[in-house]
Amino acid sequence: MIVSERMYGLGSARSAIRELFEYGKKRAAEVGAENIYDYSIGNPAVPSPDSVNETIVELLRTEPSVQVHGYTSAQGDADARQAIAEDLNRRFGTHFHKDNFYITCGAAAALTISLGALVVPECDEVIAIAPFFAEYAVFAGNAGAKFLMVPPDTKNFQIDMDALAGMIGPKTRAVMINSPNNPTGAVYSEETIKQLAALLTEKSREFGHAIVILSDEPYRELVYDGLKVPFITKYYPNTIVCYSYSKSLSLPGERIGYVLVPDEMEDHDRVYAAVCGAGRSLGFVCAPSLMQKVVGRVTGQTSDISWYDNNRRILASGLKEIGYEFGEPQGAFYLFLKALEDDTEAFCERAKSFDLLLVSGVSFGCPGWVRLAYCVPTEMIKKSLPLFKKLYDSYK
Amino acid sequence: MIVSERMYGLGSARSAIRELFEYGKKRAAEVGAENIYDYSIGNPAVPSPDSVNETIVELLRTEPSVQVHGYTSAQGDADARQAIAEDLNRRFGTHFHKDNFYITCGAAAALTISLGALVVPECDEVIAIAPFFAEYAVFAGNAGAKFLMVPPDTKNFQIDMDALAGMIGPKTRAVMINSPNNPTGAVYSEETIKQLAALLTEKSREFGHAIVILSDEPYRELVYDGLKVPFITKYYPNTIVCYSYSKSLSLPGERIGYVLVPDEMEDHDRVYAAVCGAGRSLGFVCAPSLMQKVVGRVTGQTSDISWYDNNRRILASGLKEIGYEFGEPQGAFYLFLKALEDDTEAFCERAKSFDLLLVSGVSFGCPGWVRLAYCVPTEMIKKSLPLFKKLYDSYK
Repeated sequence: MIVSERMYGLGSARSAIRELFEYGKKRAAEVGAENIYDYSIGNPAVPSPDSVNETIVELLRTEPSVQVHGYTSAQGDADARQAIAEDLNRRFGTHFHKDNFYITCGAAAALTISLGALVVPECDEVIAIAPFFAEYAVFAGNAGAKFLMVPPDTKNFQIDMDALAGMIGPKTRAVMINSPNNPTGAVYSEETIKQLAALLTEKSREFGHAIVILSDEPYRELVYDGLKVPFITKYYPNTIVCYSYSKSLSLPGERIGYVLVPDEMEDHDRVYAAVCGAGRSLGFVCAPSLMQKVVGRVTGQTSDISWYDNNRRILASGLKEIGYEFGEPQGAFYLFLKALEDDTEAFCERAKSFDLLLVSGVSFGCPGWVRLAYCVPTEMIKKSLPLFKKLYDSYK
Repeated sequence: MIVSERMYGLGSARSAIRELFEYGKKRAAEVGAENIYDYSIGNPAVPSPDSVNETIVELLRTEPSVQVHGYTSAQGDADARQAIAEDLNRRFGTHFHKDNFYITCGAAAALTISLGALVVPECDEVIAIAPFFAEYAVFAGNAGAKFLMVPPDTKNFQIDMDALAGMIGPKTRAVMINSPNNPTGAVYSEETIKQLAALLTEKSREFGHAIVILSDEPYRELVYDGLKVPFITKYYPNTIVCYSYSKSLSLPGERIGYVLVPDEMEDHDRVYAAVCGAGRSLGFVCAPSLMQKVVGRVTGQTSDISWYDNNRRILASGLKEIGYEFGEPQGAFYLFLKALEDDTEAFCERAKSFDLLLVSGVSFGCPGWVRLAYCVPTEMIKKSLPLFKKLYDSYK
């Protein structure tokens, strides 16, 4: 049977995270789940706020079945879009309205739709800043873009502007950013965003066409120590925001998020129409209707983020005391740790021998580092620290 | 701003059905909604069975939030897939198991994923049988396939086998079928399916590669007069089934369906892996989790189909008595009517002057005919019949 080799390759590819997950299950069966310290999976471990399930029940009770489970318009329920706009305006001092939004089946859909809208296939280039979520390359490939990667700034996990500047050329259509960042937990500072905006403004002028920031923001609300995440559209008008409620409301399986095309964007109507067209082409008819109505009513609320914050503090202080180096964990629920040897995979293997399951930074475009997802039971973190000490000592 | 011209075209294209819908709303404001006879929209008008909402509430009550709203595996919740398999086995005498299924965000996703898996871009051809759901051409285009159309068999709304045979060539990858059919309401007979299977078996041999049937079956359970819909995989092993619960359970907005790759399919594992890869590439991470679990528990149930059947009888007998010609409405909730003049659009316009909103068959690849969606209030049908009489008489 002839199939698409690209799709077969993607479907049969070895996933390091999934293999680690399977290993963890197998090992748990041998030594007990309480003796495995699985930092591999970035799934929210905190329940959704009660308002989510309460709103579901209320909608089922008060709205007719054919309405609550019926198609919305392709761009999403108008009331939900307006509520999302007003919540952002209240929190970020923006001026959005419902027609800036296209509700999607989560951030993955938001990204494939935005890339589909922007990219001229087999012609354009898309740039991401390492380290980045590995699926960006897959999504860019789906749109027919050439995917380029700015090497990581392992000092501060901000953006190496010189490297980015050197990479932008006449074919650059978009630069993908992700802050708070998976896998580093870093948040791009206002200074970084200003520099990025200045660079892209200059390069857009140089090459005679707008270069778009594609801002992937599923972790926008997961920040600590009172840190503010700069809202990118306020710094650079040619920004498309891709959002998901997966993390903020602990709804990863429900596939609900949005594409935001601000009015300030050059040729807003053309871009928004292309977003609608890409959604149609890819087979996203409308986002799940019940969940659209739910997020319309609870948007701006979050799961209990103090729980992640507590984990973060315990893990970071414990690792620091042992002597590990890591990026400052400012947001999301990841800590990015410097491997204790040059061979990242070998370091992960040695960690495994202590029943510590860590994800290599290689697939994120950042060898020499490993990701710890600390959305795990707090007790697990506490119990794992002596093993991190043993791992550390094994390199002395 | 440079955008993808294809996506911009798709997003800004005039939609005849949507324009008709908007016209209906405007006209309803002028003359009252009760005086507009809107047969344009194919949305289920019958509520979901109570078990749907009851199951949602039960799941929220009994399962932890992070589980019920969490990611399932990419191919879907294992229990749900197994339940779907067992229900089909019970009803159709098949032998499916969970690993034949990939749960999707509705039938549109099932189609774009299946086409993405099968099609070698810029090389392969996909054939559909007119009349067909207009988005097939969009979905085939998304996969990079050339889209060909077998002219309609307006005598029986089965398949013109000679025309199909003449169209199959070395580049043919798949033949898309849809029975019960949108827009005709016809059901392909067992004889038709046997002929199709024989033809594709012969042509697969002739061209040295398997030609796949892509069977789009959202209306599978909506059939009347005790008619049996042949289950295609039993007649032709190289069949991929695309299903949606949109119509059977009246859940169009919830985006839940599946791709079925039977064991009998040549290179099953390769095809299934390509399906997984296409889902990943397009940005379908997993189907909405709560709804996966719901359909796993209620699969095989349906909304009250007798309601559509009653509408069908009233409409068909009324139109027949007036003197209209139409295809035999055997399934789905559509009746396909012969226009009373050669210019289909002019016929629809004249119908509009009687406040009868009908959809031209042109966009379905079948000029000279119009679609009536009878998933509407029964009273509306009864009240519309005198106007159909006036429309008919206006052509005398």
